[in-house]
Amino acid sequence: MNEPSRWLTPAEQNAWRSFIRAQERLGGRVSRHLQSDSHLSVADYAVLVHLADAPGGRMRSADLAASVGWEKSRMSHQVSRMVKRRLVVREWCPEDGRGAFGVITPEGRAMIEAAAPSHVETVRRLFIDSLTPEELEVLTRVANRVLEHLEQRPMQGGSSGSSSPRPPR
Amino acid sequence: MNEPSRWLTPAEQNAWRSFIRAQERLGGRVSRHLQSDSHLSVADYAVLVHLADAPGGRMRSADLAASVGWEKSRMSHQVSRMVKRRLVVREWCPEDGRGAFGVITPEGRAMIEAAAPSHVETVRRLFIDSLTPEELEVLTRVANRVLEHLEQRPMQGGSSGSSSPRPPR
Repeated sequence: MNEPSRWLTPAEQNAWRSFIRAQERLGGRVSRHLQSDSHLSVADYAVLVHLADAPGGRMRSADLAASVGWEKSRMSHQVSRMVKRRLVVREWCPEDGRGAFGVITPEGRAMIEAAAPSHVETVRRLFIDSLTPEELEVLTRVANRVLEHLEQRPMQGGSSGSSSPRPPR
Repeated sequence: MNEPSRWLTPAEQNAWRSFIRAQERLGGRVSRHLQSDSHLSVADYAVLVHLADAPGGRMRSADLAASVGWEKSRMSHQVSRMVKRRLVVREWCPEDGRGAFGVITPEGRAMIEAAAPSHVETVRRLFIDSLTPEELEVLTRVANRVLEHLEQRPMQGGSSGSSSPRPPR
């Protein structure tokens, strides 16, 4: 990691900034709509959707974290907050020692069923409708490529950058 | 807005989930590297880069917000926090009445110059290197399309979704 920094070309920089900015603005808008329409965060919604779709409305915490795409500790904090709001309960399965289940409550199910139509409409109006089916397909492929690439490079401490200070672009 | 909800197709849903998840995971990783290597948030970095690149290291707050792609109020809070850390100062220009300038300090410039090489290396390693130049180009185009689409649809209150409750997907 001690080779000189490879600065980004203008095209690379545009790709990075556009990608981050599009997701940030889109995520912000979708999140504000969801909160004002349904009093749910995007994180609440993701958890409720996955549980509502699971057999019996229940999933092992580790499986739920993997499905939503979060680290286990983040999911644990999120589920704790949702337990306080009675959207989810935790159930322990002492005999197998493989951790708790999250189970959607009737209140949780009512929330997600009420929230889904307008959330889907928001996602369609702000995101899906802006792109052709071909563009959606390319975007899915590219996003999945990024995800696979990240999985092959687990985080190990900080990155040790090179030391040549140059004006950043 | 009272037509029945148009539920997402599996392809549309994959595009949405992959896009959100890729940005979320990538953003999280890049942010942790930047924090641990350079003690800067992604927001700090964005502000410092834009100011460092501007003539005299100064930009009007509204122009800085537009360049970074944030709302003015968010930029104002961010700049206030950075003023406390002496990375930026505010300068008022009383005669023109068009608001304050943000100006990068020597400390801010030293921070960004020290942070840039390893941040660029992280972005390249985790993002740019996962994609071909053609894919980067498509991604830029698609992300810009999403941004234009959002700008044409300013937020007005909540979205009024339809009311047919169906199991969410």
